[in-house]
Amino acid sequence: MIDAVKQQKWWGWGEEGLGYSAEGRPKFAPFVKKMVGLDIHAHVPERPAFEDLDVPAPVLDDALRARLEGIVGAKYVHTDDETRVVHAYGKGVRDLMRVRRGDLGRLPDVVLYPGDEAEVAGIVDLAVEVDAVVIPFGGGSNIVGALEAVPGESRTVLSVNMGRLDKVLEIDEESGIARIQAGVFGPHMEEQLQARGWTMGHHPDSFVWSTLGGWIATRSSGMQSDKYGDIADITRGLRMVMPGQVLELRPLPSTSSGPSVREMVIGSEGRLGIITEAWVNVHRIPEVREIQAYFFPDYYAGLKACREIVESDAQVMMARVSDAIETQYIMANGKESKSTFSKLSNKAVQKLMEMKHWDLEQIAMSFIGFEGSANHVRYEKGLVAKIVAKHGGFGVGSGPGAMYDQKKYDTPYIRDYMLDRGLICDVSETTTPWSKTAEIYDATRAAFFAALESIGRQGTVFCHLSHSYHAGACQYFTFVINDDSETAEHSYDVCKRAIQQSFMDHHGTVSHHHGVGEEHSPWMEQDISKAGVFIQRKLFEGVDPGSNLNPGKIVHDGAPGISSNSHA
Amino acid sequence: MIDAVKQQKWWGWGEEGLGYSAEGRPKFAPFVKKMVGLDIHAHVPERPAFEDLDVPAPVLDDALRARLEGIVGAKYVHTDDETRVVHAYGKGVRDLMRVRRGDLGRLPDVVLYPGDEAEVAGIVDLAVEVDAVVIPFGGGSNIVGALEAVPGESRTVLSVNMGRLDKVLEIDEESGIARIQAGVFGPHMEEQLQARGWTMGHHPDSFVWSTLGGWIATRSSGMQSDKYGDIADITRGLRMVMPGQVLELRPLPSTSSGPSVREMVIGSEGRLGIITEAWVNVHRIPEVREIQAYFFPDYYAGLKACREIVESDAQVMMARVSDAIETQYIMANGKESKSTFSKLSNKAVQKLMEMKHWDLEQIAMSFIGFEGSANHVRYEKGLVAKIVAKHGGFGVGSGPGAMYDQKKYDTPYIRDYMLDRGLICDVSETTTPWSKTAEIYDATRAAFFAALESIGRQGTVFCHLSHSYHAGACQYFTFVINDDSETAEHSYDVCKRAIQQSFMDHHGTVSHHHGVGEEHSPWMEQDISKAGVFIQRKLFEGVDPGSNLNPGKIVHDGAPGISSNSHA
Repeated sequence: MIDAVKQQKWWGWGEEGLGYSAEGRPKFAPFVKKMVGLDIHAHVPERPAFEDLDVPAPVLDDALRARLEGIVGAKYVHTDDETRVVHAYGKGVRDLMRVRRGDLGRLPDVVLYPGDEAEVAGIVDLAVEVDAVVIPFGGGSNIVGALEAVPGESRTVLSVNMGRLDKVLEIDEESGIARIQAGVFGPHMEEQLQARGWTMGHHPDSFVWSTLGGWIATRSSGMQSDKYGDIADITRGLRMVMPGQVLELRPLPSTSSGPSVREMVIGSEGRLGIITEAWVNVHRIPEVREIQAYFFPDYYAGLKACREIVESDAQVMMARVSDAIETQYIMANGKESKSTFSKLSNKAVQKLMEMKHWDLEQIAMSFIGFEGSANHVRYEKGLVAKIVAKHGGFGVGSGPGAMYDQKKYDTPYIRDYMLDRGLICDVSETTTPWSKTAEIYDATRAAFFAALESIGRQGTVFCHLSHSYHAGACQYFTFVINDDSETAEHSYDVCKRAIQQSFMDHHGTVSHHHGVGEEHSPWMEQDISKAGVFIQRKLFEGVDPGSNLNPGKIVHDGAPGISSNSHA
Repeated sequence: MIDAVKQQKWWGWGEEGLGYSAEGRPKFAPFVKKMVGLDIHAHVPERPAFEDLDVPAPVLDDALRARLEGIVGAKYVHTDDETRVVHAYGKGVRDLMRVRRGDLGRLPDVVLYPGDEAEVAGIVDLAVEVDAVVIPFGGGSNIVGALEAVPGESRTVLSVNMGRLDKVLEIDEESGIARIQAGVFGPHMEEQLQARGWTMGHHPDSFVWSTLGGWIATRSSGMQSDKYGDIADITRGLRMVMPGQVLELRPLPSTSSGPSVREMVIGSEGRLGIITEAWVNVHRIPEVREIQAYFFPDYYAGLKACREIVESDAQVMMARVSDAIETQYIMANGKESKSTFSKLSNKAVQKLMEMKHWDLEQIAMSFIGFEGSANHVRYEKGLVAKIVAKHGGFGVGSGPGAMYDQKKYDTPYIRDYMLDRGLICDVSETTTPWSKTAEIYDATRAAFFAALESIGRQGTVFCHLSHSYHAGACQYFTFVINDDSETAEHSYDVCKRAIQQSFMDHHGTVSHHHGVGEEHSPWMEQDISKAGVFIQRKLFEGVDPGSNLNPGKIVHDGAPGISSNSHA
């Protein structure tokens, strides 16, 4: 690693020293015990030691190293063990399980930190010349296996860390667009924008540890996409280094210039080149921002309300509703309240639910976000309140929403805490048309529990509706498997496969915003049809005939991909 | 032609018997005289006779005809002269100029009317087998040369008229999406939808004479895109026949499944296959729909107001503002008012403008559309009124807007009327970021007038802002050249080239919603960069290695394309 670029832990999420703690959350341990049968206090946390890893030497001859040093400077050519291990995988739970038990996969041989686009172009051209493999690397938060080399790759593997390209280059204030380098992390980008009164409004769960280039390459979407759009809507222009040439798409609000090259680059996961900068939509920081909390008698009522909200005259910033188990998880994960007011208010809420004869095991919590002028937020809240009431729900104010807003990026730390204790936690998200939201929710839960039963393990799955569109919504599943045995990865694969197959069988897509990588590629023909995969393959083959650009992702090349091992 | 599929005039726009008349519009002739120096009454209208055309025999051997008849039925295989001539071109002014003087280009050899997707697949597979060329045909309203075969094409050319695939197949009411066949014309589609309480809200100028498949293949946008989105937003899933396979993209509100195949098909102009049906967003017919008219002191004030409206809390359905000359054109084209109230009201408006010391030669007229509940429309109108006032403008009610709404599809008939009298009228539209809207407007006008001067002709150009987005807007230029000489096409090319080059030089795109075809292909490298064209070329080559699918469009294949003749 280099000082200028922050780097995650090799064994888990985020920054060394930061982590989750169950202290002060008296309801958390009982909740876990009840749901998945594990006593988190009884379990001795296990963490691997870096010294125990067997890190193979890099495949990098002196001549190639010298040429790479000539391009980016010796200081920015790294072959040390830890840097290579950090760049070997993303942060999917399979990645963490593998790295923790010393399975490093096909490590990159060298990690490069280019300082500008010309250096990126130098790397790409050299890679094609010497037949090496180039894998672009942003924040390293990918969870679909998009950052790892194909197992058994015999060519030199170059991981290109884009972290030095981290500037907001210009803001066109009249147009509401900004030109930003691809390697900038979320918080650093927003700092630069907000210092001038602007925001991009793109807040994926990975925000703290992901980059603009990564969002574009992965086809990301943030928590506020109902207002700000997916990254595909936000990205108006970009530059991408390709072998021997640089793609330049100027910033345009809309265009009719044939098949959209912009939409080919978005989601390309390094297979067409390396994105170096982008023009993105930015917005003035709104006068008012509020996240209101609501309760519904059950998840299905919440789904219906969200559907109606998105079609109403209100244009909310986010509309999120958690199912019963996720609602219980949120409650169980809350810190013990010290405020008397808060205790009283909780009691009042519970009283109200009882009066309404709600089944307390079915309650669904919802967060709905509003932004704009004070007057507009008032207007929208009025519209939403009516819809919530129509579906039997009621509001409980902005307190819980403010808490959610503060803690929204912390979930991955909980996953590491669980993994230390032998619990496998992961997420899978999909979109369907509105008419299939309840069906896919029921079916996916059933498929997961059937998979659990088939492996004889305890576990649970919960879900929230996370992003709404006119035609449908994204549902975001979190699943937990209690397995710290030798066969834990197999258990994970069985459950993950069951969930993905349920998505396919019930009108869903492989992923709403996590991408394809190698993890989801086995389902691509079911998702976009054989002809769709054929089109993507022809695109990749045409642009990258030597398979030098992150091969094996999205569409397999016939090379023995990871997924043919793990998903077979 | 067949009874089931309506067909445009061979020499002009729309239906035989319908046309523009200047009768009852006393200001029109003086306006034309003043602007372009032509007395429309003095000029004897000239129209060609079909009998004067020299229509070559089709290149179609009996064996191929028999196989085509085997696929679609003998009734649906047409080789008569008029049908072939109607399918030779779209309805660009260059198309009309050519066909009127008997230049038929490379006519299709046969026009086929398949009745279902299997028949379309049969045609495409046969075309690849015998190395023929397939050109899909919707309403025939294309204006960028996307429907014509490459000059000198030696292979048999099959025009595939999709008009029999004209049904709304299903509406998923809960999701607000409908599955619709690609060959349906705009009005017939809306009839089917509206009969069940729904609308797609997509209204391009060509609406009456264009089809769903054509909109998708062309990357179209309608007048109400500020609310309903471009066709790329509206289209959520589709089916497309490709050689040997059918692409199926299920309806999804959003997905992260690699480079977007949906966005590759949109705008593909027949180069990847033939679209047979699509899942599109549809909406409940709104309670209230109003188009309000406003006046601004000048066009630039109107541009600024539209920018502010799109960024405000109001979510209008359309925001259109015409420049000074277009405003004068609208006024001059109005029917003589018989109502005393209307006369008085016009006087009051003029009085108000004088009181405000406006330069009456600079006034810009604007139409802004509102839809939703009565309450919401009231709320939005209030927001808009403040912004309009801030930029010096004022409203004049919904009367002119209702008139605009009624007549909005009639403009192409005026073009034919003008062409009968030796005036060449055409349109070019582009988008830029907001910060470049004034620049590209000024520069494009200047470029056009310089081009006019270089050819020693009179003419004019006017413009309106037609579609707004967060980051920018579309400006839609109409230009008129007074030239009925032998060199009229050259004059047209000089002026059209000047406008397109100005788009490139001032941050614009080749087209906002008319597509590329052969007409705009020479500017593609300037628009999306060499690397962008390289990517599109590789896509087309990969999917269609034999160049059987509408070759020569968007990206030239090295074959002697039309544009290398006409734009050289």
